[in-house]
Amino acid sequence: MTLTDTRELVHEIMREAQANLIAAFEEVEREGAPHAGLPPRHFDGATWERPGGGGGTACVLTEGAVFERAGVNVSAVHGAEAPPSIYQEQPGARGHPYFATGVSMVLHPRNPYVPAFHANFRYFEAGTERWFGGGMDLTPAYGFEEDARHFHTTLKTYVERHGVVDYPTVKDWCDRYFYLPHRKEMRGIGGIFFDNLDLPGEDGFDRALAFVREGAATILAAYLPLVRRRFATPYGERERRWQLYRRGRYVEFNLVLDRGTRFGLQTDGNIEAILMSLPPLARWEFQYAPEPGSPEAGLARFLVPRDWAE
Amino acid sequence: MTLTDTRELVHEIMREAQANLIAAFEEVEREGAPHAGLPPRHFDGATWERPGGGGGTACVLTEGAVFERAGVNVSAVHGAEAPPSIYQEQPGARGHPYFATGVSMVLHPRNPYVPAFHANFRYFEAGTERWFGGGMDLTPAYGFEEDARHFHTTLKTYVERHGVVDYPTVKDWCDRYFYLPHRKEMRGIGGIFFDNLDLPGEDGFDRALAFVREGAATILAAYLPLVRRRFATPYGERERRWQLYRRGRYVEFNLVLDRGTRFGLQTDGNIEAILMSLPPLARWEFQYAPEPGSPEAGLARFLVPRDWAE
Repeated sequence: MTLTDTRELVHEIMREAQANLIAAFEEVEREGAPHAGLPPRHFDGATWERPGGGGGTACVLTEGAVFERAGVNVSAVHGAEAPPSIYQEQPGARGHPYFATGVSMVLHPRNPYVPAFHANFRYFEAGTERWFGGGMDLTPAYGFEEDARHFHTTLKTYVERHGVVDYPTVKDWCDRYFYLPHRKEMRGIGGIFFDNLDLPGEDGFDRALAFVREGAATILAAYLPLVRRRFATPYGERERRWQLYRRGRYVEFNLVLDRGTRFGLQTDGNIEAILMSLPPLARWEFQYAPEPGSPEAGLARFLVPRDWAE
Repeated sequence: MTLTDTRELVHEIMREAQANLIAAFEEVEREGAPHAGLPPRHFDGATWERPGGGGGTACVLTEGAVFERAGVNVSAVHGAEAPPSIYQEQPGARGHPYFATGVSMVLHPRNPYVPAFHANFRYFEAGTERWFGGGMDLTPAYGFEEDARHFHTTLKTYVERHGVVDYPTVKDWCDRYFYLPHRKEMRGIGGIFFDNLDLPGEDGFDRALAFVREGAATILAAYLPLVRRRFATPYGERERRWQLYRRGRYVEFNLVLDRGTRFGLQTDGNIEAILMSLPPLARWEFQYAPEPGSPEAGLARFLVPRDWAE
């Protein structure tokens, strides 16, 4: 297999993941519509080109019945010289041409009891190096132990079945990355995160690719049961306000801390694709703290690292 | 006059400005309440202490009839060693104890036709140096030439009457600072901004202090007539959505670019006082562009540097 074939193969797998995920999200959107009393929406695709080379397709569902916003983006970009965000992680890539392809998604549900979700899987080539990275994490506004256990257990089972990364390592990596130091709290309840995955041996590339490919499919098993479990839960103005307030933290994380977002903003990336991750609506309040003992206050004990997998 | 007397004098002037501004904003809030059909609100004060030395009082009005959020913060802090945000501007301050006091405010009106407003005035001492800084700027969701002319003409008159800074310089400084490179647009229509103001001569300090003191008073003449002119303008869901969308830009500026906010987040400052500047509610939309020829599209020609003063 030539290098170019590899690029096309991985890019095709990312596009396949995008198509499968969109179909699954639209199915949930149709199922939830009667409960929300709103019409189900579809994803619209917007293709963009990168002046420096490559491009992508951002598929976005707006003001749906289940998803207030859902975005699934695939890109494949290349350039003459690896940017700092690549060579800081892989020093050997510095000064070499690079290729990067990946799928990334953020889902902001309408119902405050349905957690928000983020995932991405990506593949890089630079110089003689090639590697995978990615992960997924969950951001609830209300904490449910059974949801947290389901999500983390599904991820642990998937990771351990492949045996290409160490579960405690990728779980801990996620806890540390999605952390707001200025709030001294995690963005959500974590998940898994890995980078620089480059397995040795003749079948190393295939094993890593299989792991990533199934990672995208695992999203359906890890996240969608929680959406279906909660999308019909009645809620009112109080729960909506709390959801919007928690989304403020999501905005703070993405604009202040997220490496991908900050890199995109600093390097003149496609601004709409970069900021697709922001919620449709977010709230800030001065010196707000939920009433002690309330369901809102209960979230705090979910926003610390914890071993949820059974 | 001893150094300590000077600190107390300037701090007292900042507190006086805070009290006068709050009284004036509450008066406008009472006037606008019948038009909004909502009860007028008052400012609440929250005092905070800085573990390293000093503290402040953040006064916030929440969900008012005219101001959806208004915050006026005064602080006076000191420390054994000037932080980077100080010595990067004043290299002579490095390694010296410092003192800083100032008043800062952000007003997010409820009516989409009333522009948002930001101002701050501040005083520093470090080593043998002492200097003033500050400014104010306007962020409308809908552009009105008469409003822009009034705001900038009032500021120009004030600056030229004192003759301690050059008007084109401080106007241009503001245009360049409140700029979002990733959007290629100004945050609003600008105003004035200055720093490192340290006038020579025996009366230099007094002249600079008089300029800053009147700057705080000029807020009333520059901004409040615009609030009174627009707070009763009828609006609907369309104007509200546009206002919230534009507030998304305000969030992007403050979290991605504002030096004060980023410094505060990075140095473990009082998080509630730092993020008081964020709007109560903000919206993001994917690939949104207002209809050509609409009042919303008309804002774009206000978001480029322009000489508004008559």
